[in-house]
Amino acid sequence: MSFRPVDAIFHARSLALVGASENGWTATIFRNLQARGATAAIYPVNPRRERVWGERCYPSFAAIPAPVDLALTIVPAPAVPAALREGLDHGLRAAIVYAAGFGEGGDAAGEARAAELRALAAAGLRLCGPNCMGTLSPREGLVLYPSARVRDVPPGDVGLAMQSGGLFQYWLQYAVSRGLGVSYAASVGNELALDVADYINFFVSDEHTRVICCFIEGVRRPDAFVAAAAAALAARKPIVLVKSGRSEPARSAVQSHTGSLAGDDRVFDAVCERYGIVRATTLDEMVEHALVLRTGRLPAAGGGVMTVGYSGAARGLLLDAAADAGVTFAPLASATRDALAPLLDPAAELAMPVDCGAGIAVAHQQFAEVCGIVANDPNCAVLALQGQLPIGHEQLDPQWFRALAAATDKPLIAYARVAQSLDETSRAFQTASGIPFVQGVPQTVRVARELMRYAERARRGIPPATRGARTHGSLDDALRAHGIELPQAGVAASPAEAGAAADAIGYPVAVKLHATGALHKTEAGGVRLGLGDRAAVERAAAELLAIAAEQPDLGCDGVLVQAMVAGLEMIVGARLDPQFGPVILAGIGGVFVEAYDDVALRLLPVDLADAHAMLASLRGRALLGAIRGRPPRDVDAVAAAIVGIGDLFLERAPAIADLEINPLIVRAAGEGACAVDVRTVEGS
Amino acid sequence: MSFRPVDAIFHARSLALVGASENGWTATIFRNLQARGATAAIYPVNPRRERVWGERCYPSFAAIPAPVDLALTIVPAPAVPAALREGLDHGLRAAIVYAAGFGEGGDAAGEARAAELRALAAAGLRLCGPNCMGTLSPREGLVLYPSARVRDVPPGDVGLAMQSGGLFQYWLQYAVSRGLGVSYAASVGNELALDVADYINFFVSDEHTRVICCFIEGVRRPDAFVAAAAAALAARKPIVLVKSGRSEPARSAVQSHTGSLAGDDRVFDAVCERYGIVRATTLDEMVEHALVLRTGRLPAAGGGVMTVGYSGAARGLLLDAAADAGVTFAPLASATRDALAPLLDPAAELAMPVDCGAGIAVAHQQFAEVCGIVANDPNCAVLALQGQLPIGHEQLDPQWFRALAAATDKPLIAYARVAQSLDETSRAFQTASGIPFVQGVPQTVRVARELMRYAERARRGIPPATRGARTHGSLDDALRAHGIELPQAGVAASPAEAGAAADAIGYPVAVKLHATGALHKTEAGGVRLGLGDRAAVERAAAELLAIAAEQPDLGCDGVLVQAMVAGLEMIVGARLDPQFGPVILAGIGGVFVEAYDDVALRLLPVDLADAHAMLASLRGRALLGAIRGRPPRDVDAVAAAIVGIGDLFLERAPAIADLEINPLIVRAAGEGACAVDVRTVEGS
Repeated sequence: MSFRPVDAIFHARSLALVGASENGWTATIFRNLQARGATAAIYPVNPRRERVWGERCYPSFAAIPAPVDLALTIVPAPAVPAALREGLDHGLRAAIVYAAGFGEGGDAAGEARAAELRALAAAGLRLCGPNCMGTLSPREGLVLYPSARVRDVPPGDVGLAMQSGGLFQYWLQYAVSRGLGVSYAASVGNELALDVADYINFFVSDEHTRVICCFIEGVRRPDAFVAAAAAALAARKPIVLVKSGRSEPARSAVQSHTGSLAGDDRVFDAVCERYGIVRATTLDEMVEHALVLRTGRLPAAGGGVMTVGYSGAARGLLLDAAADAGVTFAPLASATRDALAPLLDPAAELAMPVDCGAGIAVAHQQFAEVCGIVANDPNCAVLALQGQLPIGHEQLDPQWFRALAAATDKPLIAYARVAQSLDETSRAFQTASGIPFVQGVPQTVRVARELMRYAERARRGIPPATRGARTHGSLDDALRAHGIELPQAGVAASPAEAGAAADAIGYPVAVKLHATGALHKTEAGGVRLGLGDRAAVERAAAELLAIAAEQPDLGCDGVLVQAMVAGLEMIVGARLDPQFGPVILAGIGGVFVEAYDDVALRLLPVDLADAHAMLASLRGRALLGAIRGRPPRDVDAVAAAIVGIGDLFLERAPAIADLEINPLIVRAAGEGACAVDVRTVEGS
Repeated sequence: MSFRPVDAIFHARSLALVGASENGWTATIFRNLQARGATAAIYPVNPRRERVWGERCYPSFAAIPAPVDLALTIVPAPAVPAALREGLDHGLRAAIVYAAGFGEGGDAAGEARAAELRALAAAGLRLCGPNCMGTLSPREGLVLYPSARVRDVPPGDVGLAMQSGGLFQYWLQYAVSRGLGVSYAASVGNELALDVADYINFFVSDEHTRVICCFIEGVRRPDAFVAAAAAALAARKPIVLVKSGRSEPARSAVQSHTGSLAGDDRVFDAVCERYGIVRATTLDEMVEHALVLRTGRLPAAGGGVMTVGYSGAARGLLLDAAADAGVTFAPLASATRDALAPLLDPAAELAMPVDCGAGIAVAHQQFAEVCGIVANDPNCAVLALQGQLPIGHEQLDPQWFRALAAATDKPLIAYARVAQSLDETSRAFQTASGIPFVQGVPQTVRVARELMRYAERARRGIPPATRGARTHGSLDDALRAHGIELPQAGVAASPAEAGAAADAIGYPVAVKLHATGALHKTEAGGVRLGLGDRAAVERAAAELLAIAAEQPDLGCDGVLVQAMVAGLEMIVGARLDPQFGPVILAGIGGVFVEAYDDVALRLLPVDLADAHAMLASLRGRALLGAIRGRPPRDVDAVAAAIVGIGDLFLERAPAIADLEINPLIVRAAGEGACAVDVRTVEGS
C-alpha cells in the first residue's frame, strides 16, 4: 500500500508564510509560533512588502536563502498553484493550502486549479488541504493554525486528523480541558493529495502517539485506510473515530461539502468491527475513549467489566446504560465477595454494580482498598470505579488513586454520573492519580465495551482479506459443496411436466416462474405456494406459463417446482461494496427485513464465531430462540450457511457481484436451513 | 389532590442543628450558612455541649427561646424520632432527616422508626427524608447540604428535586458551571412523608421557579405526581426529568435502593407524553433542556425547527442527529432564501441545515443578520444557530447575539459541535447574550424536539382522565358499538354443527377452541386455519373437541368457527396500570410483537390524533404502508379501533382489567380491520 510521508509537514524545520501581511491569518500563525518559541526558520513571503512583523519579507521562494521545508499558502486559490510551483522549483518539500476553490463546487476554474495541485503532488510536493486550517506539532512549537485558541495545546499522545477545520480547534480546546495533549494534529481539508490514511500511517510509527483520533465524513482511499488501520492495530495504537454521514440526507450533504464519498454506513461499521476501530457515538465521547485508550492498558481475555461505586443512583444508571449498550457485567467471584464483606457496611450491595454505600465516598483509602480487591478478581478485565475530579479550591489527595493504579495493570476507569466543567485543579489531579476520569455513566459503559472489543480484536488479529480460489461448475453444485441445502426441485416447461416433477418431489410443493437472470418473483406474481395435489400444480403451472408468455421481458424459460419448506424466513447475502470489497449480510427475512431493517453486516471472510456474533446482534434474535411455543431454530445451520455463502462468494467474485439467499428457511434446531431462493447479479 | 406544603423547609426562618458538633456535617452546614450570610436564627442542639462554633448550644428544643421552623437532624437514626417528637411538642414545624435506617432494608427496628416518623408527619411535622442530604434556598442563604461544593450555588430559576443525595451536589455543580441558578432544591431521600409531587407543587406556585428539574427512580404517589405535573403544565413551568430504572435489572436495583416503585418504563414514558414532561436522556442533557426552557420562549404552532451554521461538519452532524431523533427540519420559505442569497457566499447552502460557509464564523454582525432573517421565516418555530462560548482570555462581544434575541420572541438555541469546559468568561457571555448555549449537536436536536413537543402539549392541554359511563351488554356488542369489526363466526359443540356454521360463513374458515375465560389458543394447539371445505372443518372440529375433552382445565365449551381474515397482524390492548391507571397499547402483532417489542403505549383516553401518532412511532410502521408489492394498510381503521377499544375499556374498567385484540387483522386501505381474537382478564 502506498502511503505518502507527512514528516515534511509535522517536522518542518523551515517555514514560508506565503501571503504574509500585518494582520490576518499569517499574523496569527506568526504570533502562535513566537508564543510557542518555535525554532523553525520562518520566512514571510509577499512580493508587495519588504518587512512584516518586524521581520524581513521575501518576494518569492527564489529570494529565500535556503530551501524551505513547508509553505503555508494563505493566499486566494488562484494564486496558490503558481506560488507552489515556484517553491517546488526552489526545493520546497511540502505545503499547506488553506484556501478553498479547488473544484469542490464542480466549477471549471476550480477543477483546473485542482489539477495543477495534483500535478505538484505528483512531482513530489507533500500537500495538506486544500480547504483546511493547518496543523499542529506541539513539541516543535509549530502551531500552524490561524487562531490563538489552539496556541497552548500541550504536547501529548493523541494524534489527530480531522476533515473539518473549524471543529478542529473546538475539539482540541475541549480535549485539552479534559487533560489530553497532542503528538501531531492535522486539519486535512479536501485531501487532494495527503489523506487521513497517510496521517494514520504517520501516527503508527510516531513515537509520541499512543491513540489516534479522527473526524471524517468519508474515506478517500479505502485500501490505504484499512491498511493503515491494520498497521495501527498491530502497533496497538487504537483509532477512535467519528464519522458523520450516517443518515441518507447527511450522506448527500457530505458529498456536497468536501466531495468525500460517505459510503454505506453499515459497511463502514463492518470496517470498524474488522479493524478494531473504535467508532465513537459523538465528538465528546471521542475524548472519553482517548482518555482511557491512551493509558495503553488492555483487558485480558476471559474477564468482563466490573464496577464499584457508592451511590444507589449510579447503580440504577449503570444497569440502564449496560442494557442499552448490550453490556453484561462480569460476576464477582465468591472469594472477592468474602474479602469485601468485612470492609463494608452490611447494607452494601456485593453484586454488580457494586454499591459500597455513601459513607465510603469520603473514605478514599478504604474505597481504594475495595477497588483493589475487585480489580484482583479473576473475572475482572476492566474496572470502572466511581470518581469525581476536584474543581477550583476543592482539595483531594490523589495518592490512593495512584496507589490503586500502581497495584494493578488492569484498565481502570473513574466514572462520574454527570459532566464536570474541569479546570487546572481537576487536570492536575487526574494526571497525579494516573486514572482516566470519564464523564457520564452511559459514556463509561460504552468506553468499557469498546475497550473490551478493541482488546478482543487485537488478540484475534485481522483475517487476510483473500479471495478464495476461483471455482467453476454450477452455482447449485457450489452451494451444496459449501454445505448449503437446496430444496428438492425440478424445472418444467409444461403443466404436465410440472405435475410429474411434483409427484416425484412429494406434496405440498411450490411452483415459481423460472428464469436464468434475476427476477423478483413475488412482485411479478410468479409464485404459487402450498400446492397440495397434482391438479393444483398443473393449474398453477399453466397460469405461470401464461404470465411468462405474456411478458417475454421476464426472460422465463419455464417453471420451477420446489418442495415446500417451512420455518423462519431469513436473508443471507454477499456483495461487493464499491469501497471496501466483499461483505456479507444476514437478517430476518420476509417483509420484515425491510420494515425493521434488521440485518448484520461484516467484511468477508467470516468464520463461525463471526457468523454467530452477527446473529446475536440482530434485534429480532428472539425469533431464533424458542418463542410463542415454537421450537428454537437451527442457529448453527444458519451460521454455517453464512460462512459457506461468504466463502462461495469470495470464490466467485467479481464474476458474481451479488449473491442473495432469500429466503433461507430455518428449521427447528438440528434440522438445518434450506436456501429456497438464490439470486445472483453478475459482476465484471 | 392532597399536597403537603414545603414552605417551612425552603423558607425556614429559624433552624435547629440537632447533633451539633465541632466537626462533621453540622459544622459544614453551619459554615455554609455563615458564608451565605443566612439571616435565619440558628440554634445548635446537643445536650452534651454548652457551646459549639462559638455559639450557645441548646440541650433540647425546650431550651430554645422560640419555636423553631426547621430541624436538621444529623444524629443516628435511633435518636431521630425522640428528638423530633420533643421538637414537635415545642412548636417545631418541619425537619430534614439525613440518616438512613428507616426500614429501607426491611429490618424490624428500622420499620418501627419509620412508623414513628410517619406518626410525626401525620401530626403535622413537614418531613424531608430520611436518607437525604438536605435542601438549598439560595435566596435565603439556606445551604442545608453537608458539603461546601454547593455553597456558592447562585439564586436562579431552576427548582430541583432529586431522589439521590450524592448526585445532587455534582449535578448542581455542573449546572451552575453552565450558567444555571436555583430557586429551591431538595434532596428528597426516601420520601417517607414529603415526596417529589409535593416539591413540584411548591415550584408551580413559587415566583422564582421557571423550570423544574427532577431525578427520580420511581413515583411514590402517582395521582399526586400527575396532578402536580398537570399544574406545572398549566403554569407553563416545564418539568425536565431523568428517571433511572428503565431496564429490568435496574428496576430491581431501584427497589432495593430506596424502596421506590420503578414501574413499567413504557407507561412512565406515556405519562411524560401526556403531561408534557421532558424526559431527558441523561443527567447532562437535563442541563441543556433547562437552559433552553428557562427562557420561557415556546415555539408557535405550525412551524418547525430551523438551523443556521457555518460548518459543513455541523451540517452532516445535524442531519445524522435529526434522523436519529426523528426530527424533520422545516423548509426555508422562498422569500427567506431570496433575502439570504445577497448576504452570503454563492457556495452557501440555503437549505436546512443552512451552512453560511466558514467565513461568517468571525463576522458576527453578518451572522446575526442572517439568523434574524431565518428567525423571521414563517416556517421557523425554533432556531438553532451555531455558536461557541468564549473561554478564559478569549474576547467576544455579545451585542450581536443580544440584538438577535431582542429582535425575535421565538426560541433561540446556540449550538456547539462539541462540549466546552466553561468558566466565568463563558457564563458572563451567555448571560449577556440572552441566548442559551447548548453543547453538542445530538443534544441540540433533542432539546429542540422536546421544546416542540412541550409547546404542542401546552397548547393541546391534558384530556380529562375520566372513565366512560359504565355500560352493560355483551363484549362483542360493545366492540361493535365502538366500531370494531368482528369476523363472522359461530360456536359449535360438535363437528356437524361446526360444518354447518362453516357452510353458513363461507370458506375458508378457521376453527379454534372456544372458552369463556382467557386462553392461549395457539400455545394449546387449539387453532386450525385456512380450512377450505366442510370435511376439513369437521375433521378439525373433532380434533379440537378431543383436545378439549382431554384437558378439562382449559375450560372449553366448544369450538369457534370463524371466517378467515387476511391482512397484517397487529395487536391492540388496554389495561389498568397499577400506578397510572388505564393505558392502551398498539403494535405489530404475531410473533414479531415479542421479538421486536415494537409497541406504542399511551395513557387513556386517546383520540384519533393520538392513535395516529402511536402508529407513526412504531419502528415497523413501514409494514402499514405499501411494501414489497403489497397495498398500503387501512391505517385509519386501526386508529379508529385504537380509540374505540380505549373508550370501551374506560367504560368497562375496572370490571375488566385487561382487554386485548390479538390479532387485529388490518386489510388494505379502505377495507377496514377485523378483531379476530379478543381476550379479556377480569378485574376487581
